Amino acid sequence: MGYADLGCYGNEARETPNIDKLAEEGTLFTDFYSAYATCSPSRASMLTGRLPIRNGLYTNNTFGVNAVDLPDSTGGLPAEEETIAEVLAKLGYRNKVIGKWHVGNLDESFPLNQGFHEFFGSKDNRMGPYTEDDYYPNPPVYRDNKMVGRYFEREFFMDLDTGESNMTRIWTEDALVFMEENKDNPFFLYWAADGTHTPIVAYKDFLGTSERGHYGDVVRDLDFGVGQIMAKLTELDLHKDTFVFFGSDNGPAGWKPLKGGSAGPFLCSKTTTFEGGMRVPGIFWWPDVIPAGKIQRIPTNLVDLFPTILEITGGQQSEPKKVLDGQSLWPILIDQPANSLKKDHIFYYRGTGLYAVRVGQYKAHYWSWNTSPQALEDPKYGDPCPGVCQAGFITMEQTDHRDEPVLFHLGRDPGEKFPMDPATEEYQTQLAIINAVRDEHLKSLEGDVGYPQLDYADRSLCGWAPPGCDEIDMCLPVPESEVVLKEWYI
Amino acid sequence: MGYADLGCYGNEARETPNIDKLAEEGTLFTDFYSAYATCSPSRASMLTGRLPIRNGLYTNNTFGVNAVDLPDSTGGLPAEEETIAEVLAKLGYRNKVIGKWHVGNLDESFPLNQGFHEFFGSKDNRMGPYTEDDYYPNPPVYRDNKMVGRYFEREFFMDLDTGESNMTRIWTEDALVFMEENKDNPFFLYWAADGTHTPIVAYKDFLGTSERGHYGDVVRDLDFGVGQIMAKLTELDLHKDTFVFFGSDNGPAGWKPLKGGSAGPFLCSKTTTFEGGMRVPGIFWWPDVIPAGKIQRIPTNLVDLFPTILEITGGQQSEPKKVLDGQSLWPILIDQPANSLKKDHIFYYRGTGLYAVRVGQYKAHYWSWNTSPQALEDPKYGDPCPGVCQAGFITMEQTDHRDEPVLFHLGRDPGEKFPMDPATEEYQTQLAIINAVRDEHLKSLEGDVGYPQLDYADRSLCGWAPPGCDEIDMCLPVPESEVVLKEWYI
Repeated sequence: MGYADLGCYGNEARETPNIDKLAEEGTLFTDFYSAYATCSPSRASMLTGRLPIRNGLYTNNTFGVNAVDLPDSTGGLPAEEETIAEVLAKLGYRNKVIGKWHVGNLDESFPLNQGFHEFFGSKDNRMGPYTEDDYYPNPPVYRDNKMVGRYFEREFFMDLDTGESNMTRIWTEDALVFMEENKDNPFFLYWAADGTHTPIVAYKDFLGTSERGHYGDVVRDLDFGVGQIMAKLTELDLHKDTFVFFGSDNGPAGWKPLKGGSAGPFLCSKTTTFEGGMRVPGIFWWPDVIPAGKIQRIPTNLVDLFPTILEITGGQQSEPKKVLDGQSLWPILIDQPANSLKKDHIFYYRGTGLYAVRVGQYKAHYWSWNTSPQALEDPKYGDPCPGVCQAGFITMEQTDHRDEPVLFHLGRDPGEKFPMDPATEEYQTQLAIINAVRDEHLKSLEGDVGYPQLDYADRSLCGWAPPGCDEIDMCLPVPESEVVLKEWYI
Repeated sequence: MGYADLGCYGNEARETPNIDKLAEEGTLFTDFYSAYATCSPSRASMLTGRLPIRNGLYTNNTFGVNAVDLPDSTGGLPAEEETIAEVLAKLGYRNKVIGKWHVGNLDESFPLNQGFHEFFGSKDNRMGPYTEDDYYPNPPVYRDNKMVGRYFEREFFMDLDTGESNMTRIWTEDALVFMEENKDNPFFLYWAADGTHTPIVAYKDFLGTSERGHYGDVVRDLDFGVGQIMAKLTELDLHKDTFVFFGSDNGPAGWKPLKGGSAGPFLCSKTTTFEGGMRVPGIFWWPDVIPAGKIQRIPTNLVDLFPTILEITGGQQSEPKKVLDGQSLWPILIDQPANSLKKDHIFYYRGTGLYAVRVGQYKAHYWSWNTSPQALEDPKYGDPCPGVCQAGFITMEQTDHRDEPVLFHLGRDPGEKFPMDPATEEYQTQLAIINAVRDEHLKSLEGDVGYPQLDYADRSLCGWAPPGCDEIDMCLPVPESEVVLKEWYI
């Protein structure tokens, strides 16, 4: 989902009454960022409070190349990484993830081994549908540690001709049951609905109802689900006692005219380190605790959730405490002044490359890259910057600006259209500030760079025959194991 | 002001609490358009309910070239054009225009000859400052029919070094006095504050306060003025009895990194017929009559104000009635269904050229043009489409697409990035619908094309020595009269 896919973030269609209500009753962050410009690394970062370069959800194969967890990935979120769920479990919370997990294929990466007591969903992206001869099987759907179906098949159908599916409805119903079951004890629900990811599908009631086309139908479906969950919270009288966050794991798939979301005024989209790739919605809600209708402009990030939840719950990291990239947003959530936060910076990575750094309103691009010619030719992908051109900056090859970084003031120039003149004092002063933040960050990585989990693939690891497949007659023959170096080009 | 310069239209800075409140208490239109992509033609159209091609605020010198009223223009809004003010005057309303008039230099174009009883402001754009040797004098400021000062001089100062001016404050104070004086009789106030036009300036209290830079300071200044006016309306107990509209006469000056506004997700800016040139804010307010917090998605336009106000007031056009381009929005303002309106189309002109037509969600570009190489070289102007490129569509020459118009679905693709495939049935069907609307419109122009008022210039017409200049010692020597053909290049 992109920054501007919601009415409360200015989407022209204004078709998201339930999420807009969340913003009216809570605090909306205008400068909120995903931890990475694609899904798996961003999700792993949210769960651990640590950027992909530390938690391992990246590849080392080629400098600056995006990688995500695929069904054949040999890696995943390592056991030694601590998730929010693990901290909350120690405090007696009941934890559940519903929907898209997507942080790896290691046994230790599995939700039930990462602090969640319950799991209903898939380890994979909603890739497919696949036929017998395809490289991948249709992704398995798990209930806890047993496979209960596959994407595209039976009750988890997605009809790509009509664009219909009841997936979001299924995730919603399960959320309502979980909340009902746990109304008398503390719980943590990670509702990872993935309707806005390719192949996008919506519940039949919403098909053809949006003025934005099919993507809009999907957003309406998602918004309806949020409305159901919030209504249940009130019905259970838990609303005064529950902290709710709504966000997105990366910018929109801007190359899809009918199937991608909106980055609004921002440059480019998902997979890039321009604002459109990582600036996303961020809404915090807790009646009588977090102010209603408040707007916050401080640069904030998915990695801030971990320390924020620690502060709210009194949870503690295990010893020895790992370095966290985020900070607790609690002070500003309860309306203390902006300067009660220590950090006002964002790191924009692409693979192993620290492409850009934002400090306050200033953003310096050390590297820039749009996409590769190879990716442009792949029908699954496309140009993340359609209709955009800025010579030497929006490029088809990884472009090194470290000798003279491209600087923008994001308040005056949110669209990153007008690079600041390097001859100005403002440029020099601000670049020095940003360089210092960068250097301190790079120093903090010493001894804390994770093993690159997304370097290798093994087709035998895909969900051919997970536990439980025999009970539903959905086992597939497992191919021979062969570990290969994964070549990434996006 | 651009579409996305207000918090209620998604601006990230959210620095417009007063105008946002207007939207919360009233109805916000997401698909509202200026009548033209630059100021004078758009204003003349709002006042008359008729497009520039009819009311004459265009040039015939070169096909498709923008023109605006300049201090030396020999033409202006003709006497035979009827303004909203003239209709309201017949109903006993007291009418006043404050701020920027800007529809011509003919005597008959003067506000007091176009239905307004009072005038405080300038006939001209805020161009300047000029010195003795310049082609133009500093624009005179009038109170009714007497000059009371000049822009950039004395109380109408604008300090271009500091960006400070009290102009918006002056327009605001005058509005408050007018409302107070007329609280017991019907009045029409056209508050044409021009702070967001170059050279942009803000009241000292706001200098340096915006996160958007100086342009943001100016928007905050304007927003404060709106707040003052709305507070006075309530103080005078007129709020239940007053129809309020807030809008803009064209898109933002997008070529100015620090001094131009935001078109949000839309393509390009002011002077163009892409969405960024003409999609603007449109907010309607009338407590207990117009629903609060309502969003309307119907394509609507500044030319709709004239017939809307006729319907509200029971006013009548003079006979023989001229053709109006707009329609009364009253049915949807009082929340009747969308189909209670007959029209759902927008005409995008550039000079004499009908460049594009929108019907429903579909927009066909018959011609496209960014700007001329000449304009690019003029330091006053620049590229209205910075950082944007679409070969054959965003062009430096007027490009004829009439054989195969470039079609977009603005709901699915608000940024006009993905032209529809002409081979599709959808393209063919929708183009036929749009062509029919275009043809009907062109037919309605027969016998109703106005004399091109902006073809000629005469430097002696500039405000050298208006009535009253002697009383304030501000007369300047009037140069000899010489009528010259005006060469427009933007």
